[in-house]
Amino acid sequence: MALRACLRTKPGLTGLLSQLSCSGHAAARRAPALVAQRSSSSTSQKIKVDFDQSSGVAVMHMQSPPVNSLSLEFLTDVCIALEKLEMDKSCRGLVITSSQPKVFSAGLDILDMYGKSPEHCAEFWKAVQEMWLKFYGSNMITIAAVNGSSPAGGCLLSMTCDYRIMADNPRYSIGLNETKLGIVAPFWFKDTMVNTVGHRTTEMALQLGLLYSPAEALKIGLVDQLVHEDQVLTTATETMTKWLAIPDHARQLTKSMMRKPTIDKLAANREADVNNFVKFITKDSIQKSLGMYLEMLKRRKA
Amino acid sequence: MALRACLRTKPGLTGLLSQLSCSGHAAARRAPALVAQRSSSSTSQKIKVDFDQSSGVAVMHMQSPPVNSLSLEFLTDVCIALEKLEMDKSCRGLVITSSQPKVFSAGLDILDMYGKSPEHCAEFWKAVQEMWLKFYGSNMITIAAVNGSSPAGGCLLSMTCDYRIMADNPRYSIGLNETKLGIVAPFWFKDTMVNTVGHRTTEMALQLGLLYSPAEALKIGLVDQLVHEDQVLTTATETMTKWLAIPDHARQLTKSMMRKPTIDKLAANREADVNNFVKFITKDSIQKSLGMYLEMLKRRKA
Amino acid sequence: MALRACLRTKPGLTGLLSQLSCSGHAAARRAPALVAQRSSSSTSQKIKVDFDQSSGVAVMHMQSPPVNSLSLEFLTDVCIALEKLEMDKSCRGLVITSSQPKVFSAGLDILDMYGKSPEHCAEFWKAVQEMWLKFYGSNMITIAAVNGSSPAGGCLLSMTCDYRIMADNPRYSIGLNETKLGIVAPFWFKDTMVNTVGHRTTEMALQLGLLYSPAEALKIGLVDQLVHEDQVLTTATETMTKWLAIPDHARQLTKSMMRKPTIDKLAANREADVNNFVKFITKDSIQKSLGMYLEMLKRRKA
Repeated sequence: MALRACLRTKPGLTGLLSQLSCSGHAAARRAPALVAQRSSSSTSQKIKVDFDQSSGVAVMHMQSPPVNSLSLEFLTDVCIALEKLEMDKSCRGLVITSSQPKVFSAGLDILDMYGKSPEHCAEFWKAVQEMWLKFYGSNMITIAAVNGSSPAGGCLLSMTCDYRIMADNPRYSIGLNETKLGIVAPFWFKDTMVNTVGHRTTEMALQLGLLYSPAEALKIGLVDQLVHEDQVLTTATETMTKWLAIPDHARQLTKSMMRKPTIDKLAANREADVNNFVKFITKDSIQKSLGMYLEMLKRRKA
Repeated sequence: MALRACLRTKPGLTGLLSQLSCSGHAAARRAPALVAQRSSSSTSQKIKVDFDQSSGVAVMHMQSPPVNSLSLEFLTDVCIALEKLEMDKSCRGLVITSSQPKVFSAGLDILDMYGKSPEHCAEFWKAVQEMWLKFYGSNMITIAAVNGSSPAGGCLLSMTCDYRIMADNPRYSIGLNETKLGIVAPFWFKDTMVNTVGHRTTEMALQLGLLYSPAEALKIGLVDQLVHEDQVLTTATETMTKWLAIPDHARQLTKSMMRKPTIDKLAANREADVNNFVKFITKDSIQKSLGMYLEMLKRRKA
Repeated sequence: MALRACLRTKPGLTGLLSQLSCSGHAAARRAPALVAQRSSSSTSQKIKVDFDQSSGVAVMHMQSPPVNSLSLEFLTDVCIALEKLEMDKSCRGLVITSSQPKVFSAGLDILDMYGKSPEHCAEFWKAVQEMWLKFYGSNMITIAAVNGSSPAGGCLLSMTCDYRIMADNPRYSIGLNETKLGIVAPFWFKDTMVNTVGHRTTEMALQLGLLYSPAEALKIGLVDQLVHEDQVLTTATETMTKWLAIPDHARQLTKSMMRKPTIDKLAANREADVNNFVKFITKDSIQKSLGMYLEMLKRRKA
């Protein structure tokens, strides 16, 4: 993985969401207190999980202002919540969606890579891997209710799910746009996209760092369905009903058969992948670039 | 591979064909007497092979009432007939079609898995493997004239061919729907489908056990062409002419280059795949489920 | 790889271009004298390279009459020119196009395989490999401006590029049609096509030696864009601008990540692939077939 400042880029509103995002780290780290009851609702600082035991379906709302950046803290919360749901036999399906307006998730949080120790960067990257491993290998039916833009890590998160429903709003976009920022999507981001849209589409999308409109994303198969913005979550719940009709055991074994080779590849290379990331991200030149990029983001907010 | 009763399912007419089928085993086993003459017609109990030596094309009619279930006996007949054609240098192309109304083949015969000895189950599974290996690796041009529904093993059989022409009747369906019945399609069923429609479509199709209408099947590339019901066989013959214009040797080497890795994978794992199947299918719980499923089929017929 | 005479075939005008082509070898071998200046133009006998240092984009015009056959001499010129551009840090993009009317490139030159020593055949095949390795692995942005028919080796050349723009003239065609001539495309031709249009489309295209019209090629993804014939080159230049906006380093690493496994496969098997080719092509029967084929080409010209 390689990162480089991309000073030419002049991103607009969509551009902002299309890039590595940063968020405050002020909130104390807090594990989500998920309690599986008849119909429970558990809330951490950054995520809210509603679990309806009668249907066996949980809805995970990402509510980390402003753009659900995937920070170390947020990733940790998400993974803990997911693990609890995974261990709860009564939970068979998971819908993941955003409580923030106009954005699903803006991707990895740049503040966890800037001015941090190699140890912190390594911990952060392990959390990114962990999120992917847990979602892509989940035994639950996972549906992404993509109710806003979903660049970079946000796109990756949605691609780990079994099904993607996106808001049909042409102002939203989705894609692995890392290259546009001078970054290279790691091999397992690439593998996930190849499994979703095929080799050729992935090659062009990754080389150009393409962000697709919902209509374009549907056409290439990056999302499976478009619905009106306020129907995304309800459609996800309805779709879940269809998936729940399939015997769990057969569905899980089938899913594993499809995804295991891709998962095994990262699992066997986690440490090298972390080292690769840390070595790159802690370079002086990269840190300088990240600093300039953050300055630019600050000025734009002001 | 895992099998589980799916008692929730309430299949209709199409549903019946969409599932593991069963047929009487009363008929004594009889090898098809194929004689390659100017224009020969050979008939076993369950298949009829018409070979036109002037064109070099054979047509294999599956005529095993009611739904061309792939029983051990039927599979054996099919394999013997295919082997004879394969060894006959004058036979360059094979069309496979059904003589039964409304169905191409309903898939594997459940009676060969229920109440049978582990030895019988193993023999049955070897025959399923053998059919796939022979068809997917055939040196002949193989065209499936899919003139009816083609679920599960029927879909697999059609996917082993070089080209698929299906009747454009919206009441027919095609797909690997094993998961819906609590079964997991084995890896080589999966590989065949990935080679045909790609990774993502296969992942969703197999997880949901999707059966596609002819129009949907054409759209995802599961079949290559739709024609009116009574034109399926003639179109297959016409299409064959186009394929026969290609020099055999180059076409055969090309086909082998495309399919060898997939074939080698099963060839190297046949025994483990058989053991896996037998171990699963002979479980008490699975046998009980199969028994209940057969009861349900009987009641529906009555 | 296997070659066999295909005497049944009666090719028309398009047919001529669809086949192994032959060209005179009269011209002395001459390396292209590429000089990177403000706006330089360098010319060998068979290729002309215009390099605009202000944009960082070079345009390689293939001008080897009559149909840009890929002879040993021509391949050598192309490789030398490409290598020079590759080493020139100021050159970031390459457009490859044809100066010959109605044809991009007609593919490998049959005269380098007929009546030649095994050593010559080996040298020729190494040059074909070299061209593929250099283009498919190029660090530059490569765009094929396909302004004419592009069968066999011509199709391969265009597929090595990052993007393909083709003239929207229904009289042109593109495809790997080797099988139609009794030849088998080698595994790395096949791999390149699978990476471009997927497994199933490649299987059928290679088995039937299909040549696609521009509209069909667009539909299956063999080319990316169609424009009016006289707009091919200008569109390529405009498209290049979009690609140049991507940071080189990230784009190059991404491209390498996508293509490395395919490149490594040939790189590890070059010698065996050469031996395989030479052993086949020097067979008496094949040489006889090539001779008859050349006679036929001569008669058609007369």
